[in-house]
Formats: sequence, C-alpha cells, structure tokens
Amino acid sequence: MRPSGRAADQMRAISIEPGFTRHAEGSVLVSFGDTRVLVTASVEERLPPWLRGKGEGWVTAEYGMLPRATHTRGNREAAKGKQSGRTQEIQRLIGRSLRAVTDLKLLGERQITLDCDVIQADGGTRTAAISGAWVALRLAVDGLKLPVDPIQRQVAAVSCGIVGGTPVLDLDYVEDSSADADANFVLIDNGTMAEVQATAEGACYDEEALLRLLRLARIGCGEIFAAQRRAIGA
Amino acid sequence: MRPSGRAADQMRAISIEPGFTRHAEGSVLVSFGDTRVLVTASVEERLPPWLRGKGEGWVTAEYGMLPRATHTRGNREAAKGKQSGRTQEIQRLIGRSLRAVTDLKLLGERQITLDCDVIQADGGTRTAAISGAWVALRLAVDGLKLPVDPIQRQVAAVSCGIVGGTPVLDLDYVEDSSADADANFVLIDNGTMAEVQATAEGACYDEEALLRLLRLARIGCGEIFAAQRRAIGA
Amino acid sequence: MRPSGRAADQMRAISIEPGFTRHAEGSVLVSFGDTRVLVTASVEERLPPWLRGKGEGWVTAEYGMLPRATHTRGNREAAKGKQSGRTQEIQRLIGRSLRAVTDLKLLGERQITLDCDVIQADGGTRTAAISGAWVALRLAVDGLKLPVDPIQRQVAAVSCGIVGGTPVLDLDYVEDSSADADANFVLIDNGTMAEVQATAEGACYDEEALLRLLRLARIGCGEIFAAQRRAIGA
Amino acid sequence: MRPSGRAADQMRAISIEPGFTRHAEGSVLVSFGDTRVLVTASVEERLPPWLRGKGEGWVTAEYGMLPRATHTRGNREAAKGKQSGRTQEIQRLIGRSLRAVTDLKLLGERQITLDCDVIQADGGTRTAAISGAWVALRLAVDGLKLPVDPIQRQVAAVSCGIVGGTPVLDLDYVEDSSADADANFVLIDNGTMAEVQATAEGACYDEEALLRLLRLARIGCGEIFAAQRRAIGA
Amino acid sequence: MRPSGRAADQMRAISIEPGFTRHAEGSVLVSFGDTRVLVTASVEERLPPWLRGKGEGWVTAEYGMLPRATHTRGNREAAKGKQSGRTQEIQRLIGRSLRAVTDLKLLGERQITLDCDVIQADGGTRTAAISGAWVALRLAVDGLKLPVDPIQRQVAAVSCGIVGGTPVLDLDYVEDSSADADANFVLIDNGTMAEVQATAEGACYDEEALLRLLRLARIGCGEIFAAQRRAIGA
Amino acid sequence: MRPSGRAADQMRAISIEPGFTRHAEGSVLVSFGDTRVLVTASVEERLPPWLRGKGEGWVTAEYGMLPRATHTRGNREAAKGKQSGRTQEIQRLIGRSLRAVTDLKLLGERQITLDCDVIQADGGTRTAAISGAWVALRLAVDGLKLPVDPIQRQVAAVSCGIVGGTPVLDLDYVEDSSADADANFVLIDNGTMAEVQATAEGACYDEEALLRLLRLARIGCGEIFAAQRRAIGA
Repeated sequence: MRPSGRAADQMRAISIEPGFTRHAEGSVLVSFGDTRVLVTASVEERLPPWLRGKGEGWVTAEYGMLPRATHTRGNREAAKGKQSGRTQEIQRLIGRSLRAVTDLKLLGERQITLDCDVIQADGGTRTAAISGAWVALRLAVDGLKLPVDPIQRQVAAVSCGIVGGTPVLDLDYVEDSSADADANFVLIDNGTMAEVQATAEGACYDEEALLRLLRLARIGCGEIFAAQRRAIGA
Repeated sequence: MRPSGRAADQMRAISIEPGFTRHAEGSVLVSFGDTRVLVTASVEERLPPWLRGKGEGWVTAEYGMLPRATHTRGNREAAKGKQSGRTQEIQRLIGRSLRAVTDLKLLGERQITLDCDVIQADGGTRTAAISGAWVALRLAVDGLKLPVDPIQRQVAAVSCGIVGGTPVLDLDYVEDSSADADANFVLIDNGTMAEVQATAEGACYDEEALLRLLRLARIGCGEIFAAQRRAIGA
Repeated sequence: MRPSGRAADQMRAISIEPGFTRHAEGSVLVSFGDTRVLVTASVEERLPPWLRGKGEGWVTAEYGMLPRATHTRGNREAAKGKQSGRTQEIQRLIGRSLRAVTDLKLLGERQITLDCDVIQADGGTRTAAISGAWVALRLAVDGLKLPVDPIQRQVAAVSCGIVGGTPVLDLDYVEDSSADADANFVLIDNGTMAEVQATAEGACYDEEALLRLLRLARIGCGEIFAAQRRAIGA
Repeated sequence: MRPSGRAADQMRAISIEPGFTRHAEGSVLVSFGDTRVLVTASVEERLPPWLRGKGEGWVTAEYGMLPRATHTRGNREAAKGKQSGRTQEIQRLIGRSLRAVTDLKLLGERQITLDCDVIQADGGTRTAAISGAWVALRLAVDGLKLPVDPIQRQVAAVSCGIVGGTPVLDLDYVEDSSADADANFVLIDNGTMAEVQATAEGACYDEEALLRLLRLARIGCGEIFAAQRRAIGA
Repeated sequence: MRPSGRAADQMRAISIEPGFTRHAEGSVLVSFGDTRVLVTASVEERLPPWLRGKGEGWVTAEYGMLPRATHTRGNREAAKGKQSGRTQEIQRLIGRSLRAVTDLKLLGERQITLDCDVIQADGGTRTAAISGAWVALRLAVDGLKLPVDPIQRQVAAVSCGIVGGTPVLDLDYVEDSSADADANFVLIDNGTMAEVQATAEGACYDEEALLRLLRLARIGCGEIFAAQRRAIGA
Repeated sequence: MRPSGRAADQMRAISIEPGFTRHAEGSVLVSFGDTRVLVTASVEERLPPWLRGKGEGWVTAEYGMLPRATHTRGNREAAKGKQSGRTQEIQRLIGRSLRAVTDLKLLGERQITLDCDVIQADGGTRTAAISGAWVALRLAVDGLKLPVDPIQRQVAAVSCGIVGGTPVLDLDYVEDSSADADANFVLIDNGTMAEVQATAEGACYDEEALLRLLRLARIGCGEIFAAQRRAIGA
C-alpha cells in the first residue's frame, strides 16, 4: 500500500490551468497532486549571440523553487548568488525536452523561454514542469500564428520509482525520499522517448525493473497527454 | 480620469487569500488589482549568529519577482548571480515594516522570514507585499500559541502619487510609469506611520502635495486593514 | 540637552572644500561635523547602452565607506565581492537626488558619475554626500561650458530624527543609534522636496512629528545651500 | 562504417595507469582512445557539516576540463567565477555512481573526493572519469586498511549512441557531435545498473533502440571491468 | 631632464600626516608628491580561524583605489564584485612588508589590518602605502602599551626605474608609463631588504642596472625613514 | 646538506616533453623534479576588445593548480568561484615573462594564451611554468609560419632561496617551506633579466645574498635554456 493510498500505476490528480498570469504569451499553473508549478512562456524576437543569423530559433527553460515551496525553508538562490547544480540540471532537462518536439527552423529567429517556478513541492517538480511547459509553449506558439506549426507532437514527463521493492508511478515526496531507485521519463505522444534518467538511490536495479518503470511511465504520460489536450481545448 | 476609470481616492480590488500554500506556517496570496504577490511566513527556531543569546527574535523579509511577472521578461536574479539594488531596498523595507509592529522580545529566540514573491506585477508590489505579509505573519504567530501576543497592531502599506498634476491613490503600472512623484506609506492601524518614502520622479513636490498623498494613503490603508481582518477571520 | 550640546535646530559645522583631488572634473571634501565624505564628479563622453541615442545624458552615483571610517572596522565590500543593500540603497538615493535638479537633455549625451566615499563616519553620511555632490556636479558642469546650464537649482539633504521624544536636526552617530525615528529630507532651494524618507526605528511617529522634522530640515538645508554657494564662489 | 573504422560494438583502446601522481591517496590517468582524464582520490578525516556524527562517510566528486583539452580553447571556469551547468551535472553523476558501490557506514567518518580533470577530450569524458575514479577510489580505500571492505563491487560507465541510424558503442567526439541520441550507462559488475541517462539529440528513440544501446553498454563495461582489475593487479 | 624637473636621485616631497582620521587606532595621510594614500591601522582582538591558538598575532593589509583617484575613472571594485589581480598583488606585498619588521609572538593574539586607500594616484601608490602603513602600525602598536615592543625596525618602500635609459628614483605617473623597467624596493632601516620586485616593461635590464636602482632606492628610503620618524615624533 | 642530497648549485632533473596533448597549437609537460606542469599554447585569431585595431597581438597566461597537486587537497578555484591572489599574481608574472621575449607587432593581430596547469607540485611551479611556456609558445608560433619570427630570445625562470643560511638553487617544497628568503628570477638567454622577485620570509637579506642568488639563477637558467633547445630540436 502506498502512503497516499494510490495503486502502483495510479497518477495523482493532474490539473493544468491555462492563462494563470496575464503578461506572458503562454502560462499555466500545473499541479500533480500537491506539487504546483507556475510555468510561463515568453517570446522574444531576439536570440542569444551564438544563435543569430542561422535562420532558426531557440527554446530554453529556467527553473526555480520558491524558498518555502518545501517542508522546511530553503535558501533563496538569488540571495546565495548562484543556482545549485540541481537547479541547473533540471532547467537543462526541461529545455531539451521541449526542443525535442519543436522544429527550430519553423519557429524562426526568436527565442521562447519557459520559466518554471515551483510554488509548492511534493515530489516530481521537474516532470510536472515539463508537462506544463508544453502547454505554455503551445499557447505561446499559437499566438505567433506561424504559417507552419513548429510543434509537431506532445511531450510529457513523469517520475517512477522502486519503493519498498515495488515499482510505482508518480512518486510523491514521501515515496521519493525512500525510493531505492527513481527514474524520470520524458515521452513523446507517438510512443518514443526524449529522455530517460534512471538513478539508483539505495539499490542498483536490473533491466526488468527498468522496463517495468517504463511501462508505468507510459500509463502516466497517457493521462498527462489527455490533460494537456484538455487544457488547450483540443 | 484615471486610465482604470477609478476615482482619485479609490483603491483597486483588494484580495487576501490565506493558506495559499500548505508547508509554510503562514501564507497568503495578496492581490491589489492585477498585482499578485505570494507571501509565506517561515518560522525557524534559530537565529542569525549576530542575534543569538539576546533573548529576542527577528522578523525579516526576502523579495523576488518571477521573471515574467512583468510586461516584458526580466532576467532571473538567481541566474544573474545577484539581487538588484531595487530588490534589496524593497526587502529591507518589508522587514522594517513588519518589525514596527512586532515585539521581538515577546517573539522569543526564533526567526520569522517573510518571502514575498511577485507572481504578477501591475504597480505597487512592495506595498501589496507588506500588506499581505502582515497576514502571513499573524497566521504564523498564531500557530506558535505564545503566552503574550508579540504582534500588537496592524501594519499596511499603499502607494500614492501625483499623476498629471493630480494626487491619486494606489497607482497601477500605467500611472506609476508616468507619475511626477510617487510615495509609499507604511501605516499603523492607530494612525501613526512606520515609513514614508516620497520620491520626485519628474517634478519636485511641495508640502501640501505630500499631505494630500498622506490623506489618500489613510483612506487606502483603512480598506487594507479591513481586508486583513477579514482574511484572519477577525 | 543633545550629547553634542547643540540646540535641537542646530546643524553641526558644515564645510565644503572644493578641489580636494586634482584628476576629477569636480571634487569636494564635505564635512558635517566629524562626518567627512570625499565626492568626485567624473564626466564621461559615453553612456550606458540602454541610454544611447536618446539625445540626453545621465547622472549617477556610487557610494562607499572606507573600512575604518567607522568606530569598528567593517569588511571591505570589494573583498566581500558585493555591495550591501544599504550601499545600493544610498547610491540610488544620491543619483535620484542629483537628477532631480538636472535637465538631462541640456546635459547632452554624456554621463556624470558622483563617487561618494566616506572617509570618516559620524552619522548623516548619505545626506552629506548629496549636499557635497551637488557642488562637485556644479564644478564639473561648469567645466563643460555648455550653452544652456542643465543644473537649474540647488539640492541639499539633511537627516532629522526624534531622539528621546524630541525632534532634532542633523543627527550624529550617538543620536542616530538611539533615535525613535529618523528621516532624510532632500530639498530643493525653491522649497520643494525631491525625496522624503522617514523611518520608525523604535516607535512609530505621527503626522505632527513628520511636519516638525520637515521644519527642521528646512532650517538645515538653508544653511547647506549657503555653504554650497560659498564653495562655488557664488 | 564509423569514422574511426571501429565496429559498432568496439570500444576504443582503454588504458588505466595507476599512480600517475604521488600525493593523492589514489590516482590514475585513464584513457578511452584520445580522451584522457586524470583522477585523484583524496581521503580527508573530516566531513562536511551536514554529515557529521552519523557514523558514516561520504564519497563525492569534482570535475573540470582544462581550457585547451578541447579542439578550441574554452574559458577557464575559475576565471569565469562559476562552474557551468554541464560541469555540475557531470560531477554529481560521478559522485552518485561511486556511492552506488560504496558502503558509507563501513567507510567510516571520512570523506573521499574524486577529482576528475580532463587533460584531453575526445568524447566520453564523464564515462571515462567514472571508470577511472573507481580505480582511484579502490587504491585509496586499500590504503586505509579497513577491517571490512566498503567497496563491494566494481562500477564502470560507457556512452553509446545512435549515429546515422546505427547504435554504436563508445562515441568519440565526431560521433557524439552528430548522434541522434546518446546514452550514458553506469553499470555494476553484477549486471545491474546504477544510472541510465538516454537523451534524444536529433530524433527521439524507441524502446528497442534503448535496449540495443544497453546491450552495447554491457559489452563495453565488460572490457572496462577487466581493465580496472588489471590496473589494481587483481 | 625628468618631466618634473627633478634630479635622477631626487624624491618627490614626502609628507606623512598622522591622525588623519579619528576612529582608527593608527592613521596617516601619506603623500609622495601628488600620490596620496590614506592608511588606517585597525586592531582587533580576534584572529582569523587558521591562526587561533598559536600564541601569536597577525598583520595584514587591504588596498583600494578610489574610482577617480586616477586620470580617467576606473570601475569600483565593490561594484564589479571582485578585486583585480593587481589589487591583490599589492595588498599581499604590503602585508608581507609590514610583517617583515613585526615580531608576531610579541604582538600577541590580535590582528592589525592596514587599510590603504588611494585618494589620488600619481605613480608609486604601493610604495607610498607601505611607507605610510609603517607609521600607522607604529601608532596602533604604541596604543597597545605592550611590555615588549614587537616592531623592531622601520620599513619603507620606493619605486625606481629606467626611463629613457636613465635610472631614476621615485617615478611619477608620466615616468612610470614610459619606463623600460621598474622596480619596487622594500628596505629595512638596517640596510637589508624585505622585498625586491624588478620588472622589465619595455626592455630587459642587466645586473649593473639592477644595482644602480638599488642604490637609488637606498637614497630614497633614507629620506622616508626620516619622514617616518618625524611623523611619530621620534 | 640539502634534504634532496643536491649540491647548493644543483638543479633537479629537468624534463620538457613537447606535444603532450594534441589539440593545442603548442603543448609541453614540463618537470622540475617532482613538480610537473602541463602547458598549452592556444592561438586565437581575435583579440580582447581593448587591443583591437592596434596592429599588434597579445600573449597572456592563465595558471591553475589541480586540487590534489599538493600534499593535502586544496579547494578547486572554479568551485570557490574565484581565483586566489596567489593564482592571479602568478599568471600575471607568466604573461609578462613571455611578452618580454615576444615582439607583439611581428606576432600580428592574434592572441596566444598559455594555460599552465600544475599536475603535481613540489616547489617552483611558477618558474617551471614559465620555462615550459616558452617551449609551448615557440611551437605555436612555429606553426604560424610568420614571415619574421616574433620570438627573438629564450626566457627561463628558476627559484633560489636562502635555506638554513645557505643560498641554494631550485628549491623543492621542503626547502621552500623553511626558507629565510626566496627569489624568483626570470632570465633572458642574453644574460639580462625580465623579472626579479626576492622576498624575505623569515629574515631580511642583504645585497650580497641577493647577488649570490642571482649567480645561482644564472647557473640554473643555463641548464633550462639547454633543455628548452633540446625540446624544440634546436
């Protein structure tokens, strides 16, 4: 039995609320249970210097955690004067995941930045961020009214893990803290994968376990893809 | 006529929603019209080194603006590696304002940090932050169940300014950008003042104008005090 | 009775010594009693990127405190690798105060930087800095021999406070440390105000107190305006 | 045909030279073809503050790239004043991988730091670093002459990828730059996995491809395990 | 003929004004011609952690240049967020020079920091700083009224150089900018040397030139030793 | 008797191995006994902004010490976020020394950066770096096939010191730690000097001692010049 009473292959309640803020070209508040992330997509008609003049655009992400999103207050990264390795790792993952479904040439010479700020954390903040960011990006790109759509597919992400010997879907904080292994899957709606990161925390895992986690991720991402479509009214 | 159609002495809609996040000892989402600030109060049973062993506590604040809280995206301070002068000035003001109504000896040897993060900005973020922070602090202190209440009074803040020659209350972004002078008032519910900061932006102001702005601030803070009491169910 | 033996409305001895250093386009050593600040005005025929091409100039300020300007040695900000919030707050105030009397279009596309370095501190360093900076700026602009003078008026600043229940003018360090409230006034020689910052330190203040502090500030700035005129031989 | 003329499942020449420097408790120069990484293991009889008094030790890693390890000179991170996200991501991965085979309780209250500095880069620096770090750690722990060995198994890592549609083992720089997907596998000598990181670069991959990459990784790590054993004379 | 009209072995006017500021345990304004450096000596009854409990003290120095001490304004190091290599090199030299004449055991477990801030620069700021710092240190140690004097000798410094083929003493800025070689000598009043730093700028120098520069430095330091004794009334 | 058994005027074994890495335009592994430094020379066809358009080039250096190059592990400067004063002092010295033998006009508008990274430290790392950097620079410039050779002479460096009252050549770490004075000499192959830095550590030194150290340095640099010529096959 999981602490939350969920079945092994059961996601937490997913909610993706579009238009949460008004200035951004796209914005959502995404919730996976008690994990809540505000994602905004900002379109800028200029590129970082190293990308200019190549006839293509860029999609990137930044990630932050409000100091009291967590059970005990963490230090504010702006006050410490640097972003942690964890923060940088996560924002690089989010950016790669969104670029996996974006044709940068079709996007044209502009940059879209996905700002993912965790309002409340209960496990799975990076996967919620990716899943929400797709909707924010979708909304922002819709606003550009481009002749050909540069976003060809949906991308979603979910974490799975082995807790107490059992593979389970969509870990919350309590499970995440005690997992033997935990894996983040970034999946495309055609069944392929953009990223798999599977990490042993307490015990190394075998191939069968990895595949069982992947099966769970497919179930979870199926639900997220549906929630994404509902959020954009598709 | 103001851009928003408000009368000169009319506040925007005030909303203070307690319990917006679940981990913090106190939290609110405060809105002054389209300005929305998430404030959390975190209680820690330890003090910064320079305050230890004096038999009293500390109340401090940190302030941040999500990158796309504004019309155009600003750089993330954590990524730049430092907080701007504006950010530091604001967080110092918030901390002083809250300490003005807190008896630090009665609080005891603990620190309460008010994290004020601007979700959406439309002028007056610092005054909304102070006004909301009082509620978050109140909730956090209530949870401590101290024998004697260290928070003796209410504190609220509002900005006023001279726009197109007319003193007006609670500037929004459009007014703020074109004001000749703008003033932040931090008032106590007994009619005294914790802080006045009146700054000429385009034209210096005279004593009469300062007093008219103060009259407006008294009207605005009266409404905020009422909203604060409603938020805590008083 | 004040610790220094001064009357409530009595300034410390004011001295503004022009030409204290030889490289700067304008320089003064300004003293308010034992508070001594070296101010230099540097003219540069280039602007920060965000100001270029607008047909106007910029006046800005930087502030520093020598490590042993104070009773006990403070850390050197260059060694710590960042400027404190207090430093940034002060230098922003100085810059705004000087811009309040400068017509930036008449100045033309150049930048003048006022460097205010505290050699010895005994309260009121920011107000002494502003008062001296006006003279340094005046000297630097005189040297430009512009067709129309961009500096239309004088600006001066002084701190007042409520000490032991009594409003007094031009606080020294001992008074500043024990004040119930302290206020910095930046006044223009035509009687208007560029900035008022009144802060409760130990007890909130009422409107009457604020007005009495303003009366004292008018007395003090009158003396400073005269000292400024003497310094430039006007 | 691969640019290097290797077969799809062929590793580059592996060399692990123990004792490359003399001060460290363990050191190796590890080469995967033209990729050369110097790894030192430093034993310190003190722990970071957050680990003290728990009766266990810590194994951590730092990673650096000499500025001209690469085809064109990169900026020195010490001169820029911060480590890139890539650097932090890699050093976190190395540390986790080594901890996966270390019993921290048996290690006792000491810290071992693996410094992995890339002398010359030709793809696969992080996997070479992990593979060499195991030998450096082994040598350092041997020197401690602990009653029970805290390193229970071998760990090795290799990168695989899909290049021109074909899954290949141990990518060099040319292949890495053009791969459609690239995956780092950290494997244990009992067949289990400590970490899988598979990333789509140009095209998303399916489950079959992931499994084929894993097969290749098993082949490569088998060779690395043998090279590790030779390096320690086992 | 030198630009200043001085003879090759002629110092600029030396002035060492003790007691320039009032808070420091020792302070001087030292001038070598137009080069003016404010030096304060601060005594603190605590040591940096790595020096505690060894029964001896420490003498250290920090160096700074006010932004407009020079012909054109330089950036403020506190604003840039780091001290330049030049600054660090100079402050290390000053500290070593003073420690060369201080018995740290006799000083006891306290630290004296010499803050050397250049008010106006015209060449030779580091040597003026060392020469003035000895007086500030002497005054601060006198105030400690120690049973045995820890400062056994005088130390002074001067720069010499080869300008237009001629060895000259005490370079000013104009000479320094065009020197073929320039050397800083830190000499002890018994004729020995604490530091020699001789650097080719435009042309390498031979042994005879080095010795001629040393002869000049002995002349210059003789004058400085006398000025130091006058400053302390010895 | 020296700890190493060497005679007072005896160098450690010198080895300069060219072509140690393959990407750099010039590279060597230089060893003075157990001190080993990897030096690479990188040619870039662009200049720092302040040097552009002057018709000449630039030669500069960066220096680093691998964390475990030393007996006990030091902190990684990239992780601390800044280079120490010592590091900056050394890299400035290396750059000046190489520029002393380079005609920057003949080099043309390009920059050569000498990266000197200490693999293993046993005293004299900066002098080994300079001595090896000359060879790396020579190799890189040879590759440019310039019409007129911009490197006119050889430069080499060695440290000498007074240990136990005796002047000795080429200090190792044990001697360096206990020297009364230590001096770094940067000599040109025509007998002139580019830099002398002689520092009293425990006891001030007299002119005769300085000259005896210089005699030793001439002996040492003679051997290094020969090793440099062998390394380039001259």
